[in-house]
Amino acid sequence: MKQNRVNRVLKALGDMGLSQMLIVDPMSIYYLTGVYIAPFERFYGLYLRADGKHVYFLNRLFHVPEDVGIEKVWYSDTDPVTDLIAGRLDKDTPLGVDKDLRASFLLPLIDRKAAAGFVNASIAVDRTRGVKDAEEQELMRTASLINDRAMAQFKTLIHDGVTEKEAADQMLKIYQDLGADGFSFEPLVAFGANAADPHHAPDDTAVKPGDCVLFDVGCIKDGYCSDMTRTFYYKEVSGEHRKIYDIVRSANEKAISRIKPGVLLCELDKAARDLITEAGYGEYFTHRLGHFIGLAEHEYGDVSSANDWKAEPGMIFSIEPGIYLSGDTGVRVEDLVLVTEDGCEVLNHYSKDLEVIG
Amino acid sequence: MKQNRVNRVLKALGDMGLSQMLIVDPMSIYYLTGVYIAPFERFYGLYLRADGKHVYFLNRLFHVPEDVGIEKVWYSDTDPVTDLIAGRLDKDTPLGVDKDLRASFLLPLIDRKAAAGFVNASIAVDRTRGVKDAEEQELMRTASLINDRAMAQFKTLIHDGVTEKEAADQMLKIYQDLGADGFSFEPLVAFGANAADPHHAPDDTAVKPGDCVLFDVGCIKDGYCSDMTRTFYYKEVSGEHRKIYDIVRSANEKAISRIKPGVLLCELDKAARDLITEAGYGEYFTHRLGHFIGLAEHEYGDVSSANDWKAEPGMIFSIEPGIYLSGDTGVRVEDLVLVTEDGCEVLNHYSKDLEVIG
Repeated sequence: MKQNRVNRVLKALGDMGLSQMLIVDPMSIYYLTGVYIAPFERFYGLYLRADGKHVYFLNRLFHVPEDVGIEKVWYSDTDPVTDLIAGRLDKDTPLGVDKDLRASFLLPLIDRKAAAGFVNASIAVDRTRGVKDAEEQELMRTASLINDRAMAQFKTLIHDGVTEKEAADQMLKIYQDLGADGFSFEPLVAFGANAADPHHAPDDTAVKPGDCVLFDVGCIKDGYCSDMTRTFYYKEVSGEHRKIYDIVRSANEKAISRIKPGVLLCELDKAARDLITEAGYGEYFTHRLGHFIGLAEHEYGDVSSANDWKAEPGMIFSIEPGIYLSGDTGVRVEDLVLVTEDGCEVLNHYSKDLEVIG
Repeated sequence: MKQNRVNRVLKALGDMGLSQMLIVDPMSIYYLTGVYIAPFERFYGLYLRADGKHVYFLNRLFHVPEDVGIEKVWYSDTDPVTDLIAGRLDKDTPLGVDKDLRASFLLPLIDRKAAAGFVNASIAVDRTRGVKDAEEQELMRTASLINDRAMAQFKTLIHDGVTEKEAADQMLKIYQDLGADGFSFEPLVAFGANAADPHHAPDDTAVKPGDCVLFDVGCIKDGYCSDMTRTFYYKEVSGEHRKIYDIVRSANEKAISRIKPGVLLCELDKAARDLITEAGYGEYFTHRLGHFIGLAEHEYGDVSSANDWKAEPGMIFSIEPGIYLSGDTGVRVEDLVLVTEDGCEVLNHYSKDLEVIG
């Protein structure tokens, strides 16, 4: 058990009036115990209680170290697992439940009245995870450092005739050679008009002169994720494309310049969005400005017009404005940032100057 | 829309007294619409109604074909998505919910009394998916045929000094060269005592003479999954290991010989388990006999002592008995089988004779 993290979660639960919670997100359980299990469809849960009598629910097929420091309750595939969970819960107080708890487990607990109410309490875990401790900050720096180095190599993969998929297929080895454990997500490689889809998956499109070359890529190192986007241009760049590149880069930099403890995350989104809107492209920036990241590539919390959280030291999130012109081009410039005591540390160092490659 | 499959699901819902259901499993939605989306943390749902007024809930970042044949309701990241869903539901009848619907969406719908009760109705979809139609059966045959061919190549990867991880790292290319689209799950490669863990992930263990060499592997082809296990022996095999191999193989074949419409799936588990128990190894067969498979590697439904479903023509599941001796060795022999009108068709054709390789 990482007692300090458990205490922060229990404190957050207490602030919500809760004294018990059932956590099922395997990454949250890893965050709190140091043990990672991929449970697939089987139940896997960490039950936290204010009185410290935590329980770790485990299928007999899972392998965990002997000494995790929590009482283990084992079940097999033929045991009635929801009965077993219900038997451990405090029926007289409300239960905080993980947002990811599935209906197949939640509905039977509700039907049995296994607690005095059921409340989505993930925010207690997720906001704790959203503020990285010193150990995590260092791991995030390392993962982003690898990503910076990888980006320098990725751009050299682009030459006449290469397809998005061919470029993407070479990325894993580059990451591994740089010491990463794998992708944090499948790399997005988009040439020309394909970049107008923010989620375009690499296909057999070959690069041609004048295309933008968008890489949205990240790796995992020691459990922590990096995520960065850079947009290059192949052989040449039109004046219009240069113009929108500069707008997006300025939006990225403007948002980053505003980051410090206390700023509302929605204000960061607004700063970037206003700049793009004033330049005439507001309707082409179709997504939120950023997302939290850490043990997962997308963690709870975003940088959007709907989020009025205040920035706190230790938070790490992406700043990734974009402009997407259907049938023509797309630009996105993305960095990870760590909120510090008096501003922010940008975890990515790869240049944001417009680069013509090839 | 695959109207025939939708009708089968609506019929199953009707049998449960339900006239509306919210489906969120992306594979189930693919099964019914032919459209696959990976929604990550965003809401993605197909709402089916007995009156045919189905609704497809989509985030604006998702890309779907124009003409899916269902009313689309789009939302953006800043919209209150549970309000939007609640506004479409019939408040006066119970709602069938997908077992995978997460607490973050389910609890607000319950709090709003958006339906007259909430019932886990996944069985209506999952049991429909469990009985494959002719098109699916053919796709499953093809995926298993590739798996048979791949197994013949995998065994040639084993030579002096090779590690589990080195062997596993070569498997994707072999599958791709055989026409597969990718893994259906990360391959399990286990040498010697590592095979005593049924879920052992390939590591840096090198093979040595006398080791068992267990491959639990599968690929995806056109959306459908294969899954097969064979256990080889490197250079030599001890009498004891040969004996337990023969027991496991016999358990596999005995269970398969019992398959026909009407047999209870728990009887298949019992047939294999009894044979292993009578041979003195019952306590070392630590998992269920098999699982359903199709669009996902593990689909709903298993072949275990707890499942009294009757076999029906079109069902496809694995038969995978094993014996696991901690610190020593492990054996598993796994095939996929398709229940036919009068017995079953074994989808794997790779030999089950004990093979000494290397």
